[in-house]
Amino acid sequence: MANLPAPIKDIQFIADEVLDLTGHYQKLGVHEELDAETFVTVLDEASKFLHEYVGPLNNPADAQGCRIEGNIVTTPDGFKELYKNYCESGWSSLDGDPEYGGQGLSYWLQLILGELNTYYCPGWSNYPGLTHGARELLDHFASEELQAKVLPKLTTGEWSGTMCLTEPQCGTDLGMVATAAKPAGDGSYRVSGTKIFITSGEHDLTENIIHLVLARLPDAPEGTKGISLFLVPKFLINDDLSVGERNGVAAASIEHKMGLNSSATCVMNFDDAKGYLIGEPNQGLRIMFTMMNGARLNTGIQGLAATQASFQNALAYAKERLQMRAPEGPKYPNKPADPIIVHPDVRRMLLTQKAFAEGNRAMAYFAGQQLEVIKHSKDAEEVKRAEQILAFLIPIIKGFITETALEATTHGIQIYGGHGYIKEHGQEQWYRDARIFTLYEGTTGIQALDLTGRKLLQIQKGQIGHMADIIQDFINQHDTPYNKQLQKALDDWQDITAFITRSATKDPNEVGSASVDYLMLSGYVVLAYFWARLHNSAEHSKGQLGAEFYAGKQKTAAFYFAKILPRIESHQASIRSGADSLMDIQASEF
Amino acid sequence: MANLPAPIKDIQFIADEVLDLTGHYQKLGVHEELDAETFVTVLDEASKFLHEYVGPLNNPADAQGCRIEGNIVTTPDGFKELYKNYCESGWSSLDGDPEYGGQGLSYWLQLILGELNTYYCPGWSNYPGLTHGARELLDHFASEELQAKVLPKLTTGEWSGTMCLTEPQCGTDLGMVATAAKPAGDGSYRVSGTKIFITSGEHDLTENIIHLVLARLPDAPEGTKGISLFLVPKFLINDDLSVGERNGVAAASIEHKMGLNSSATCVMNFDDAKGYLIGEPNQGLRIMFTMMNGARLNTGIQGLAATQASFQNALAYAKERLQMRAPEGPKYPNKPADPIIVHPDVRRMLLTQKAFAEGNRAMAYFAGQQLEVIKHSKDAEEVKRAEQILAFLIPIIKGFITETALEATTHGIQIYGGHGYIKEHGQEQWYRDARIFTLYEGTTGIQALDLTGRKLLQIQKGQIGHMADIIQDFINQHDTPYNKQLQKALDDWQDITAFITRSATKDPNEVGSASVDYLMLSGYVVLAYFWARLHNSAEHSKGQLGAEFYAGKQKTAAFYFAKILPRIESHQASIRSGADSLMDIQASEF
Repeated sequence: MANLPAPIKDIQFIADEVLDLTGHYQKLGVHEELDAETFVTVLDEASKFLHEYVGPLNNPADAQGCRIEGNIVTTPDGFKELYKNYCESGWSSLDGDPEYGGQGLSYWLQLILGELNTYYCPGWSNYPGLTHGARELLDHFASEELQAKVLPKLTTGEWSGTMCLTEPQCGTDLGMVATAAKPAGDGSYRVSGTKIFITSGEHDLTENIIHLVLARLPDAPEGTKGISLFLVPKFLINDDLSVGERNGVAAASIEHKMGLNSSATCVMNFDDAKGYLIGEPNQGLRIMFTMMNGARLNTGIQGLAATQASFQNALAYAKERLQMRAPEGPKYPNKPADPIIVHPDVRRMLLTQKAFAEGNRAMAYFAGQQLEVIKHSKDAEEVKRAEQILAFLIPIIKGFITETALEATTHGIQIYGGHGYIKEHGQEQWYRDARIFTLYEGTTGIQALDLTGRKLLQIQKGQIGHMADIIQDFINQHDTPYNKQLQKALDDWQDITAFITRSATKDPNEVGSASVDYLMLSGYVVLAYFWARLHNSAEHSKGQLGAEFYAGKQKTAAFYFAKILPRIESHQASIRSGADSLMDIQASEF
Repeated sequence: MANLPAPIKDIQFIADEVLDLTGHYQKLGVHEELDAETFVTVLDEASKFLHEYVGPLNNPADAQGCRIEGNIVTTPDGFKELYKNYCESGWSSLDGDPEYGGQGLSYWLQLILGELNTYYCPGWSNYPGLTHGARELLDHFASEELQAKVLPKLTTGEWSGTMCLTEPQCGTDLGMVATAAKPAGDGSYRVSGTKIFITSGEHDLTENIIHLVLARLPDAPEGTKGISLFLVPKFLINDDLSVGERNGVAAASIEHKMGLNSSATCVMNFDDAKGYLIGEPNQGLRIMFTMMNGARLNTGIQGLAATQASFQNALAYAKERLQMRAPEGPKYPNKPADPIIVHPDVRRMLLTQKAFAEGNRAMAYFAGQQLEVIKHSKDAEEVKRAEQILAFLIPIIKGFITETALEATTHGIQIYGGHGYIKEHGQEQWYRDARIFTLYEGTTGIQALDLTGRKLLQIQKGQIGHMADIIQDFINQHDTPYNKQLQKALDDWQDITAFITRSATKDPNEVGSASVDYLMLSGYVVLAYFWARLHNSAEHSKGQLGAEFYAGKQKTAAFYFAKILPRIESHQASIRSGADSLMDIQASEF
């Protein structure tokens, strides 16, 4: 299987030329030392490290998977040494607080590091990824005392983190959480219950694991209002931050999955485990959901990283595999056949992958910038605007980018023909690994309900809001060959939004019925905006990446507007057909 | 994992009520003993056998896979006993010639047996499936002497068959076949070369394996015109039909695949192996392609069987899994949550699966009837018409049904949420297994080129032909709520066909650029016709399957026209955008 270097030029183009990272940080007044050159150098170094140490493990680690004996979980061969090397090289602490040994670099860089980790090995990416998420949550919500106990070693990567939400009887419906926490009398709690699907719940990479656990206090209100958040360490923590005795939490088993086999997905039993309350009682879900934007953005980025990897492998194969002749006649008459990249349908699949990988990257990085505005801006209005943008954009990013990753990675198999189905070339693994992204961190259906029900109707009162303004401003200010099509798509989006807003008042089923169509349609319109921007940036480029690079961007924009954006037609028609065709059929008639 | 009984009622509805199997056989003057009751009884018995003996092996056989030691391939535990039982129970010879110990039943029944085999275990289905294909080919093209040598034991299943086409350097492009056959002087040949992706190439189920091998004679013309077909047995065959010495053919390795793990996919080395010419020299591809309609129909049927199985598992889960409340408020206030089938988006996914499984079944069985017309009708005009229908319909069936199987089986995972990603529930296996169907027997791209280039433009001179007439006649003769939409879809189909016909004369890339969009659009229109027929048959039903059954069909028709058929809008727009956006970009600009 290929281990192709990550597309640093593409990352550079989006971050520097499309989204003006230098101006972004100057305006925010943070990371001003992070000019484009430094930014790219950091990522180039990261990519080199991962290419050397992570990429070669991707296939064998999938084949080997994780193992459990008793309650000891062993990660694939090479992960332990890799993890140590990764942390010692400073990658675990890229945006960590220098006070705790972190590098103090930007959140955006950390996001892209997550992309690179996934690009080289999705299963691996979740070990540093989850720790970073836990660290961020604790940084916001834990008491100073708790922070002092766990943040230093979470920052260096000596310890790792988990999020323990799901239980056998509840995934989406966290109001049904049954894990119980009772006060121990000394300010701590005793946590008991079973959690499932816990990523990195147990493994052999770190000396301690910090679990963030949703549980109910005695006499807590029913449902979502009665859930609190607890920190439960695998080993109790001594005052000198060394690990003490084993706590009452252990892996009962690991899941056998379709993919992501190098990531340990555990069933965790908490048996009178010592835990510490994070935040106020019964605020657990609120705290968890505060972290959701970052978590969902990360998952969207995992989707585009898988898309990118599958695309690059397929592109290399399409240039090299000789089969049949070009429709206009032989392009390489001296070879026994032409490379398959001459065939229009192979190009259709490659361009679809390319359009998704590169356009979705712009969409995701744009969201990353908004998160940095929220983190750093001192302008309350600007922060509010960024929050409103993200409220609407994050479910689109999570839902749309991961769904398009499924399509892209299946094209990645198809371009290889039968060779795509065998393990040798690695293309089938990208599909298997990517398949989790539309499921975890909230399924596509949940993203769609969040977008259509909660964000669009409840919060934005039926208005697309900032995203519509941003797109309209772009059209007004730039002259691209796609302005007319983009304007039409924006108008259609507004119209269908108004349609849903009206119909939702008449039938409570209309929101759910329209939701995934609406999410996908919104994704295609937003992606059209970004492809218009990419086209524009390529046209007025800095020239630093070479003429062919910019020509490729412009021609991919043309493809997107010609072949992909028209998908919004079908989604509109489906939405306008309403809820009846979904709701009329009785369960017994299925 | 569930082992749910196959939907015999659904099969009965299509075969008996929609496609009038009794009238069909009476008109053809064959199998007149096969009334609807007998037909269904045979399938019911087959389903019971497979449910008991095949279904329980599906998951474990996937986990275990096939093994190779030296050149000996071992199938998963239980397959050897199962295969013996299957043959002894007469299932291998259902439509076999009674002269050779076959049951003399109909081809259509044999097709549905293939569906049932796939429904219970796709990997298993290919062992009897390939043998049946080899038997049919030999029945048409082998000399009487060869037939007498191999057909008896291929019919009973004591021996099995393969098709050896692909080589490392050629899959789609069979003109590049390099395997060589030279005359041995005694009327036989010596075959040498390497074949890959050979389904059932080597295994432990039968005492002999009959390989049908594409190879080149000395001085054969280059390309597709110089390929001949040879029968190469694993063991030479004595005059008394016992097996003699080992021939020079052996498995070199087996492939490690994404799915279909219980099917042995082999690399086969032919080393001066004794072979017998089938048909005339240099007619190998022509002979192989004569069998293509049946082979591609079978693959389409594998797609709908996987769709059906994934649907039934998802439906059972959706009725049982409690999570969240219905949008209108609790449907089961006494339970901790409502079953997820109350949620509109879960219904959207279930109905999509159902619409594909059941509508595609009608499409496939209709094609099966046409194949029986070709086999049995004495009316030359009728045979010609059936051939013309199939020329156009088979690439649609192969391409569209297998592509929709990918969509359906991914919904089958999504409905289960995270539980769909783990192996326990079997849903991820349906996706993995189904993923091969768009690849083997000609990829979707190849089906689309066959449909758009060869069949539509070259053979049908730009006319949809019979399928358009059949749909128009239905609209004229039946009053359904969907006539208007169906007429519009038919008109759109005619228009876009005319568009492609025109644009193809100007640019040779237009055909390939439009091809997959055109194939999918054609599939959606044809499926709309069958859903209108299903609706009509349910409305005027025999009543034998219960009111809920027929109501379900009518409501699924409503869903199909509301939510799925509008997809043709996007395909039309994509086709009309032409080839430029695919062809302008240079390979170096990707």
